[in-house]
Amino acid sequence: MSQFERVTMRRAEQIELALAPRPHGTSLQRWLYDELRSAILTGRLSPGARLPSSRDLAARFALSRGTVLSVFSQLDAEGYLTGATGRGSFVAPELPDRRFDRSDRVSLKKHDGRTSAHERNGDNDGTARARGIALSSRGHLLARTPFQVSGRASPARAFRASQPDLDAFPFELWARLAAKRVRRTRRDLLGDGEAQGYRPLREAIAGYVGMSRGITCTADNVVVLGSVQQAIDLGARLLLDPGDTAWIEDPGYPGARFVLEAAGARVVGVPVDAGGVDVDWARRHVPDARLAYVTAGRQAPLGPPLALERRLSLLEWARDRGAVIIEDDYDSEYRFEGNPLAAMKSLDHDGHVIYCGTFSKLMFPALRTAYAIVPDRLVDPFVAALSLTARHVPLDQQSVLHEFIADGHFGRHIRRMRMLYGERAEALKRAADRHLFGLLEVPRIIAGLDAATFLSPGIDDAEMARRAAREGIETRPLSLYAIDRAAPPGLVLGFASIDSDAIESAVIALARALAR
Amino acid sequence: MSQFERVTMRRAEQIELALAPRPHGTSLQRWLYDELRSAILTGRLSPGARLPSSRDLAARFALSRGTVLSVFSQLDAEGYLTGATGRGSFVAPELPDRRFDRSDRVSLKKHDGRTSAHERNGDNDGTARARGIALSSRGHLLARTPFQVSGRASPARAFRASQPDLDAFPFELWARLAAKRVRRTRRDLLGDGEAQGYRPLREAIAGYVGMSRGITCTADNVVVLGSVQQAIDLGARLLLDPGDTAWIEDPGYPGARFVLEAAGARVVGVPVDAGGVDVDWARRHVPDARLAYVTAGRQAPLGPPLALERRLSLLEWARDRGAVIIEDDYDSEYRFEGNPLAAMKSLDHDGHVIYCGTFSKLMFPALRTAYAIVPDRLVDPFVAALSLTARHVPLDQQSVLHEFIADGHFGRHIRRMRMLYGERAEALKRAADRHLFGLLEVPRIIAGLDAATFLSPGIDDAEMARRAAREGIETRPLSLYAIDRAAPPGLVLGFASIDSDAIESAVIALARALAR
Repeated sequence: MSQFERVTMRRAEQIELALAPRPHGTSLQRWLYDELRSAILTGRLSPGARLPSSRDLAARFALSRGTVLSVFSQLDAEGYLTGATGRGSFVAPELPDRRFDRSDRVSLKKHDGRTSAHERNGDNDGTARARGIALSSRGHLLARTPFQVSGRASPARAFRASQPDLDAFPFELWARLAAKRVRRTRRDLLGDGEAQGYRPLREAIAGYVGMSRGITCTADNVVVLGSVQQAIDLGARLLLDPGDTAWIEDPGYPGARFVLEAAGARVVGVPVDAGGVDVDWARRHVPDARLAYVTAGRQAPLGPPLALERRLSLLEWARDRGAVIIEDDYDSEYRFEGNPLAAMKSLDHDGHVIYCGTFSKLMFPALRTAYAIVPDRLVDPFVAALSLTARHVPLDQQSVLHEFIADGHFGRHIRRMRMLYGERAEALKRAADRHLFGLLEVPRIIAGLDAATFLSPGIDDAEMARRAAREGIETRPLSLYAIDRAAPPGLVLGFASIDSDAIESAVIALARALAR
Repeated sequence: MSQFERVTMRRAEQIELALAPRPHGTSLQRWLYDELRSAILTGRLSPGARLPSSRDLAARFALSRGTVLSVFSQLDAEGYLTGATGRGSFVAPELPDRRFDRSDRVSLKKHDGRTSAHERNGDNDGTARARGIALSSRGHLLARTPFQVSGRASPARAFRASQPDLDAFPFELWARLAAKRVRRTRRDLLGDGEAQGYRPLREAIAGYVGMSRGITCTADNVVVLGSVQQAIDLGARLLLDPGDTAWIEDPGYPGARFVLEAAGARVVGVPVDAGGVDVDWARRHVPDARLAYVTAGRQAPLGPPLALERRLSLLEWARDRGAVIIEDDYDSEYRFEGNPLAAMKSLDHDGHVIYCGTFSKLMFPALRTAYAIVPDRLVDPFVAALSLTARHVPLDQQSVLHEFIADGHFGRHIRRMRMLYGERAEALKRAADRHLFGLLEVPRIIAGLDAATFLSPGIDDAEMARRAAREGIETRPLSLYAIDRAAPPGLVLGFASIDSDAIESAVIALARALAR
C-alpha cells in the first residue's frame, strides 16, 4: 500500500487503517479478513468505529465487492462488526478494548512445561495474571512415562526388551487382506461401531483364547481395546476409589504401577520368588486389597510362571473378598518348551479375573489392538466406561485383524515366531555361556521375547546399563522394576528381534562393557 | 470307554478315572489334557495319586505315546503333576483339594450386572464367599452412557442427531489411498508410533486448523486421539483433582458432563442464551472453576455460536485464574452461510484452550480419529498421560488419513458436504414451515448436522420423542441435555444423513405424532 493510499483512506474514514501486504499464497478474502480482524483486536479499529464502505475498500485494494461483503459478513457473524445493510459497518461497540493488545498475530507463546504448587494455588486476587496452568495432584501421576520410548522408528537393536521381529511379519499377506477388506467395505463398517468391539473379531478372539489359553468364554466376554494399559486404567477406575489398595508384583511392571497410582490406588509391592508372586504374603499383608495385578504366565520381569497352588489361592482370595485380579498375559504365547501354559483365567469359575492380551507384541506394535476377557457381571460397566472415555478401536483395523485370525494366519504366525524366537533364546544362552561367565548370569530361557539376567549382588545395574549403552547395547536394569523393595541387580535382555549372529556379537560387546 | 476298560483301569491304578468321550472337533491331545486337568481339579485324581503310565494310557485310549507324554509335560509345567521321568507321574501333593469342586467344566456363570453397597462391603469374615464385585463410587459414574447407542449398524434414519451422510463419503477414493498405503508400508510404520500421533498427520492437521479455523499452531501442539471424549477425560484428570469445580453449558452435552463427573469434578451448569453460554454468570457464580467446557462454534444442543465479547471474557477469566477451557468444536465446519467461524482457540494468546476436533463427524464415525490442539506447556503431560492410559491410534489409519488431507480430498469433501447439508437444512426448514406450524418451532438452520427445535412451554419433550419414535422418527428431547435447570422443551433433529424428499415425508410423520 502506498503512502498515498494510506493518507487517502485516513481522510475518507477518519481511521488509520494500514493493511499489511498480502502474503504469498493467501487468498484475497483470507488476507482481508485477517487484516481487519487483527486491526479490530489490536484496537487500531476501535469499538464503534465505522469501516470504509465495501465499495471503497473494493476499489482501493482492487478486490471484487463480493469479496469485501463476504468478509464483512463473516466478521459480523463472529461479532466483530455490527451494521445493517446499506447503513455501513461498524466495529462492535461492546468489544473489550485492548485486552489482546500485545500482538497483532495470533500465536502460541512458548512456556515452560513445568508447574508448581505455587503456580497452581496462584493468586486469590482475581485480577492478578496467573502465569501457568497447574497439573492436578493426580495429573502429576498420570503424566509419568514408565520407560523412555523414543517414539521414533529405529532399527532392531540388541537387546531392546519386548520387541517382536518386524521383518518376520507376513506383511505382504496383511497388505492383501487389508486391500481386500477395503474393496469390500460395507456401509455398516462406516458408521458407529460397537464400543465393545467388532463382533466377528470378538468371536475370533474368544475362539483363540479358548484354544491357546484354555479360557472358556464367548464373544460377549471379549472387549476390544487399544492397549492393555487402557484395560488396566478402566479396570482400576471402575473398581477402585482413590485410596483403595491394589497390589502388584515386586519387581513388577512400572506401566501397571503408574496407571494404578494415577487412578488413586495405594499400590503395594508383593515379593516374587521362583513360583511367581508370593500370594500368601499378599493374603497376610494386604488382605483388604481390592485389586491385584499379576503376570501369571511369565512374571514381568523375572520370568517364572505363577505356581498352580498360588493361582488357586489367589482366586480364592478374590472370591472371598470380592476383589478383582487383572491378569496381564503379555507374551506367554511364546513358550519354547511344551505348549503355552493355560492362563490363570482358565480357572476363574467365579468371574474375578479380567484377562488382558495384546496383538501389538504378537504381530506388530503399530497395530495397537488389545483385548480383555471380562467377567459377565463387569462387561456392561466396562464397555460403558470404554464408550464414555474412548469410544472404540477403528473398525477398519478390527475387520482386517478378524480375517487374519479367522483365516488361520495368526496361528501360523505365532507358531513360526515361537520357533524363531526359541532359536534366538538358545543363541543368547549359548553366547552368554561362552562370553558372559562371571559377569552376568543368564538362566535357561524357555519363554517370552526377553529374559531377566543377573549381576552379582551389590552391583549397580543402572550403571551397567549405561555402560552397555555406550557400547551400543540397549538393556533395561531390573532396578527400573522395583516397587517397594530393591530388585536383584540385573538386566532385561530382549532377544526376539535380532538374528542369532547379531546376538553373539552383541553379547561380546556387552561382556566388554560389563568387564570394564 | 467301556465298563470293562474302566474297571481295568481302577484295578491297575487304584483310581477311578473315567474320561468323558472326546467332543467332535477336539484334538486327542486337547481332550486328554482337559480331562486329566478336570479330574485333578475336581479331586477325582487326588493330591499325590499316581497316574496311569503313559504307555498304559496310550494303549487304552489308542493314542500315540508322544501325545500322552506331551500332555503330562504340559500338566507338569502347570503344576498339576510332579514326577521324575521313568518313575511315573503323580498329582502334585500340595494341590489344594476340593477348592473348585462345584463344576468340572471351566465356565463363566451368569451374574446379575448390578452391584450394591451391601455387596461391596461384603462380609468381613474372610472365609465367607462374597457374591459379587462392586463398582467403585466413581465406577458408577464412569459406567454411564450419555445416549443409547445401538452400536449395531442401522440405515440412515430421520432425524438421528449428529450423523454425517455415509453414502456421500468418497469411499472408492479412500479405499484406493488405503490400498496404496498398505502396499507401500515401510518398516517404520510397523513399530511403536509416537504417542502424540504420526507426525505427517499432525502437520496436516495443523495446516487444516490454520486455514479453516484460524488457529495458528504447529504439529508440536497437535495430539492425535481416538475421540474427543478421550481428550476431555485426559484433560480433566490432568487438571482437576476430585472435588474441583468444572462448568459446562446448560443445556449441554451429557457426554462431557458424565466424563467430567467420572473424573471427580463438581460440575456446574451455566445458562445459555442467544449469545451462547453466559460467561458473566459463570464468572460471578463459579469464578473458582478450574476448567470450562464450551462448544463455542455451535452450542450443543441449542446452536448459537459464542459471542465474541464472551469469548474474550472467558479467555480473560482462564488467564486470570490459571484455568483451562476445553473447546469442543465438533461440527462447526458445516456452516451454510459465509465461511466457518474462527475457533475461540484462535484468540488464545496465552495457552489456556485445549481445542478438540474430530474426523468421525466430518468423514465417517467408524474412523474414530480425533485431535486436540494443546497449549505448549500442556503438551508433554498430555502426551505422557495418553501414552500411559492408551498408547496411540493405529498408525495405519493415521497414515491413510494424512494422505487424504494432504492430497486435498478432505477439504473437497467438507465443501461438498457443506453444500449438501445446507440444502437438507433448507429442506427441513421448508417442510417444517409447511407441516409443523403450531406444533414445533424450527428456527432457520445455518450450521451443523442437526438443529434444536422447540415445543410450546410446558410440553413434555421426552413424551413427544416417544410418540415420534412410534411413527419411526428418531429425535432427541432437549431435556436429555439439561444439567442443573430445566431445558426449554424441544427436539434435536438431525438432517444431514437423509435426502430432501425423505425429510419432507419424515416431517409429515413427525407432525402426525406431535398432533396426537
